[in-house]
Amino acid sequence: MGSQSDWPTMQCAAEVLDELEVAYDARIVSAHRTPDRMADFARGAEAEGFKVIIAGAGGAAHLPGMVAAMTHLPVLGIPVQSKALSGMDSLLSIVQMPAGVPTGTLAIGEAGATNAGLLAASILATSDDALAVRLKAWRAARSEAVAEKPE
Amino acid sequence: MGSQSDWPTMQCAAEVLDELEVAYDARIVSAHRTPDRMADFARGAEAEGFKVIIAGAGGAAHLPGMVAAMTHLPVLGIPVQSKALSGMDSLLSIVQMPAGVPTGTLAIGEAGATNAGLLAASILATSDDALAVRLKAWRAARSEAVAEKPE
Amino acid sequence: MGSQSDWPTMQCAAEVLDELEVAYDARIVSAHRTPDRMADFARGAEAEGFKVIIAGAGGAAHLPGMVAAMTHLPVLGIPVQSKALSGMDSLLSIVQMPAGVPTGTLAIGEAGATNAGLLAASILATSDDALAVRLKAWRAARSEAVAEKPE
Amino acid sequence: MGSQSDWPTMQCAAEVLDELEVAYDARIVSAHRTPDRMADFARGAEAEGFKVIIAGAGGAAHLPGMVAAMTHLPVLGIPVQSKALSGMDSLLSIVQMPAGVPTGTLAIGEAGATNAGLLAASILATSDDALAVRLKAWRAARSEAVAEKPE
Amino acid sequence: MGSQSDWPTMQCAAEVLDELEVAYDARIVSAHRTPDRMADFARGAEAEGFKVIIAGAGGAAHLPGMVAAMTHLPVLGIPVQSKALSGMDSLLSIVQMPAGVPTGTLAIGEAGATNAGLLAASILATSDDALAVRLKAWRAARSEAVAEKPE
Amino acid sequence: MGSQSDWPTMQCAAEVLDELEVAYDARIVSAHRTPDRMADFARGAEAEGFKVIIAGAGGAAHLPGMVAAMTHLPVLGIPVQSKALSGMDSLLSIVQMPAGVPTGTLAIGEAGATNAGLLAASILATSDDALAVRLKAWRAARSEAVAEKPE
Amino acid sequence: MGSQSDWPTMQCAAEVLDELEVAYDARIVSAHRTPDRMADFARGAEAEGFKVIIAGAGGAAHLPGMVAAMTHLPVLGIPVQSKALSGMDSLLSIVQMPAGVPTGTLAIGEAGATNAGLLAASILATSDDALAVRLKAWRAARSEAVAEKPE
Amino acid sequence: MGSQSDWPTMQCAAEVLDELEVAYDARIVSAHRTPDRMADFARGAEAEGFKVIIAGAGGAAHLPGMVAAMTHLPVLGIPVQSKALSGMDSLLSIVQMPAGVPTGTLAIGEAGATNAGLLAASILATSDDALAVRLKAWRAARSEAVAEKPE
Repeated sequence: MGSQSDWPTMQCAAEVLDELEVAYDARIVSAHRTPDRMADFARGAEAEGFKVIIAGAGGAAHLPGMVAAMTHLPVLGIPVQSKALSGMDSLLSIVQMPAGVPTGTLAIGEAGATNAGLLAASILATSDDALAVRLKAWRAARSEAVAEKPE
Repeated sequence: MGSQSDWPTMQCAAEVLDELEVAYDARIVSAHRTPDRMADFARGAEAEGFKVIIAGAGGAAHLPGMVAAMTHLPVLGIPVQSKALSGMDSLLSIVQMPAGVPTGTLAIGEAGATNAGLLAASILATSDDALAVRLKAWRAARSEAVAEKPE
Repeated sequence: MGSQSDWPTMQCAAEVLDELEVAYDARIVSAHRTPDRMADFARGAEAEGFKVIIAGAGGAAHLPGMVAAMTHLPVLGIPVQSKALSGMDSLLSIVQMPAGVPTGTLAIGEAGATNAGLLAASILATSDDALAVRLKAWRAARSEAVAEKPE
Repeated sequence: MGSQSDWPTMQCAAEVLDELEVAYDARIVSAHRTPDRMADFARGAEAEGFKVIIAGAGGAAHLPGMVAAMTHLPVLGIPVQSKALSGMDSLLSIVQMPAGVPTGTLAIGEAGATNAGLLAASILATSDDALAVRLKAWRAARSEAVAEKPE
Repeated sequence: MGSQSDWPTMQCAAEVLDELEVAYDARIVSAHRTPDRMADFARGAEAEGFKVIIAGAGGAAHLPGMVAAMTHLPVLGIPVQSKALSGMDSLLSIVQMPAGVPTGTLAIGEAGATNAGLLAASILATSDDALAVRLKAWRAARSEAVAEKPE
Repeated sequence: MGSQSDWPTMQCAAEVLDELEVAYDARIVSAHRTPDRMADFARGAEAEGFKVIIAGAGGAAHLPGMVAAMTHLPVLGIPVQSKALSGMDSLLSIVQMPAGVPTGTLAIGEAGATNAGLLAASILATSDDALAVRLKAWRAARSEAVAEKPE
Repeated sequence: MGSQSDWPTMQCAAEVLDELEVAYDARIVSAHRTPDRMADFARGAEAEGFKVIIAGAGGAAHLPGMVAAMTHLPVLGIPVQSKALSGMDSLLSIVQMPAGVPTGTLAIGEAGATNAGLLAASILATSDDALAVRLKAWRAARSEAVAEKPE
Repeated sequence: MGSQSDWPTMQCAAEVLDELEVAYDARIVSAHRTPDRMADFARGAEAEGFKVIIAGAGGAAHLPGMVAAMTHLPVLGIPVQSKALSGMDSLLSIVQMPAGVPTGTLAIGEAGATNAGLLAASILATSDDALAVRLKAWRAARSEAVAEKPE
């Protein structure tokens, strides 16, 4: 994530990865304040053993796209809800990438963070059958939890 | 894709998959006109051997999200540029999914389709080293093709 | 409705149907978490005796359009006000349906829910004269309740 | 409709009503230029034998809502695509009605007009079994016409 | 105004008219709930002695445009701030009138209401020299009240 | 108007004033390129005998508001349709004036210009009975010209 | 700034200039309420010794562009967050200037004000080596303050 | 600029710099395709003798902000008009930078590019009296070229 202030949003991704028993590392890497740290992270991520990168940022949110520019790993982007424009700026800054450098973008805010965790898990599950089983169980449990009637 | 009219956009995804030698199958599956076909496809995709699903649609674009609701495979969404609202409706209909059912969304239109192909390839490359090599080469070639000066 | 959290909005529809003595059944049917339940509901609604369906959802709101794809009954859609984008995403996801599968869309939020109840009643009243009388009385009472002067 | 210039959009509604053998009358009734004609039409529509009213207009599109204010019949609204704002003004002017006076709003432009015809037919079909049969056949034919593969 | 709930906004217009000693009458006239009252008011306004009409409404705000359709007096419109869309719907519903029926539109909310009062006064001042003097004094006082430095 | 390029829009105002036999003077006065000329015009307009000022501009459209800041005459603003943002920038720059300095804003583009001419005429007609008669006739003729049926 | 109410935003610019030891003068200059004061300020700024002007305003924010029309000094604009439209009106009113009169626009609200101070400092630093050193130190300190891990 | 396709826009900046006899170098530096070239450029710009950097890009436009993250020189950003969203995505991606890393943003498209050239010149003119003279002459000539009357 780009800033400590993004953590309340981003921890939704961490929570779902915990629930699915997917190992991850949460780091603060600012595209604008620590561009070297970002480049070192993005370029070294594959060698460090990362399989998927989830990047969240708000406003002129450059972190997901810039990380995607410096790695061949799949990059998922979370538009953090911004103060003035409610995350519409974050969303467009992340999703409207030019041809050649993709970021898989999720919804604005906490729902997007949860879904980034789930999508990362589904990506890993394409080559991890045990995770696929856990993922199916997680989703089935949520489906079953939907009440029939409003209270 | 949801309609024959989406093909000019969606074939950008097909082209990049061809270039990267990734096998794929292109089908028309309309969420609104053929919901059964969509359900059969989404539910059977894993058994058919699909690893990643790319779904594109325009306007009230429900195909990516509904496919994601019926499979555990990663689903990537392409907002096709719509006539009146230039794809803003397509984008919001695809990206703003509730927590629990993710769609990894790319840019509106052809750039998004190209990037969906690339992101799908990067997902497959997490467990296919030969593809990872081809993907890196594809991206390196594009980087080298950037001229130094405007003409 | 798609979720328990939509009930504070949706109950405005229930209230007006109560006032107009129109029978209804309120159910939670999530397009994304319970797609089978949704399909069973939509396909069986006519046989169950439903005449009109009111569907409300927020964000990437697929429920109204997907129900409309699986029934020939009139479907009315209520865009629930979403957190980040205030229901603009809900509105576009519901109203921008492609030719062939209509959803009659009402205003964002509680006003839309009240109006969905009223529009459903007016649809039923096309073949129910007693209901037409009650509907006219309901609207006349509201017109008469408008004060002449601000207080 | 509010103006002769709306006819290229509105005739999509007429066409689908023709295909479904639903009788209709197409009139130009401007909320702003002929408010008396509008009031006469709206107030007399029930007595004239109308069951459903489809109203289309663009820009500050007041026709659907004002007709709805003067009749108890169901009113469907079509946002005609406007020049500067592509129909976003038309859409909001039609759909954002206050509680008490509903307009069932369809998509911007021609798709919305086709769908207004279909939704009107589905409303009439709630008390006309033969029309219900024709409507189901119309929709089934469209579903079957969806190709399996892009060309 | 269209509703009692618009009064907190609209009274800003009343206040400035009081300050400028301009006579006015404040009435609730709903385009949607009391269309007859609206028509009676608009058609009779000239004979009642009104010179300028200020109309405020929110959401699908039809009151200013419909009044303008039924009078030759100048009509000023105030977009009341709406709940979901913050008055953008109100603004577009009022300002985007078709050629032939003008509404002079002010800013969303209280600033717009104050300014409607001022603009009405400036219109009346074109043939009332004493009012012109008061209006100039009012504005000069406000200019002089602007501090030189922030506190 | 702010620029020669605004004339195709602004001449719609001139045309309707010609039709209504209202005298006017059309000038190019750029807020940004000729601020002195603008100030001289705005400050001297009352003494020159102007009764109403119509100002049109596009993009960051400051002309109407700045003229309103320097005169007590009624100022009407026309948002000229801009290239990138279709006049939404022009509209917001003109209409969202702070309390104290009003601009009566019309629709984006040519319809707005025609309506600015009409609104100016209705303002002048508050103290010119002959003009009021011509204005009523102009509007009646337009109402009568509305066809009953589409062609 | 245009109003006392802009100071909570604008003081973020003052704070960063204080931290960088850049001399400045903070004044209230309203484009709409004190256009003469604005013109006097803008025309005299160079002679007064100003090198860069930072102008902030909200809504129909004309101050930055109008100051830029009357000086050859660099003008930076801060869109103050507005009540109804969250500063989107302020942003478009400031940034969409026509060719010939530039305003360098920063982000909506407090972040924009801080950045206006920083950009002004970087402009001055192009000819002030000591300031360049302080500016680099300020930014380095912020980079170093970014934590590695979320708390 | 980020791409050869940005040159038709960006050359407007080059043209005005030519007219003002300001030396410049035009380079293609893609944030996404050539991030190393971008970093080398941004980090070395001061040593190469650059005083001001103009960066233009479209869509998820990261170039201006990322260059600003890696230099202490003033960075001006030009939002290139994008296909689907007309440059609104470019604008928000450039202007909504977080506190600490400013980009002075100009208008969308060619007007913005011309103005970036002018603003860069005005920045350089703060320490170059001869350039200040040329800049004043350039602007005076444009002011004088404004016609008095439309043709």
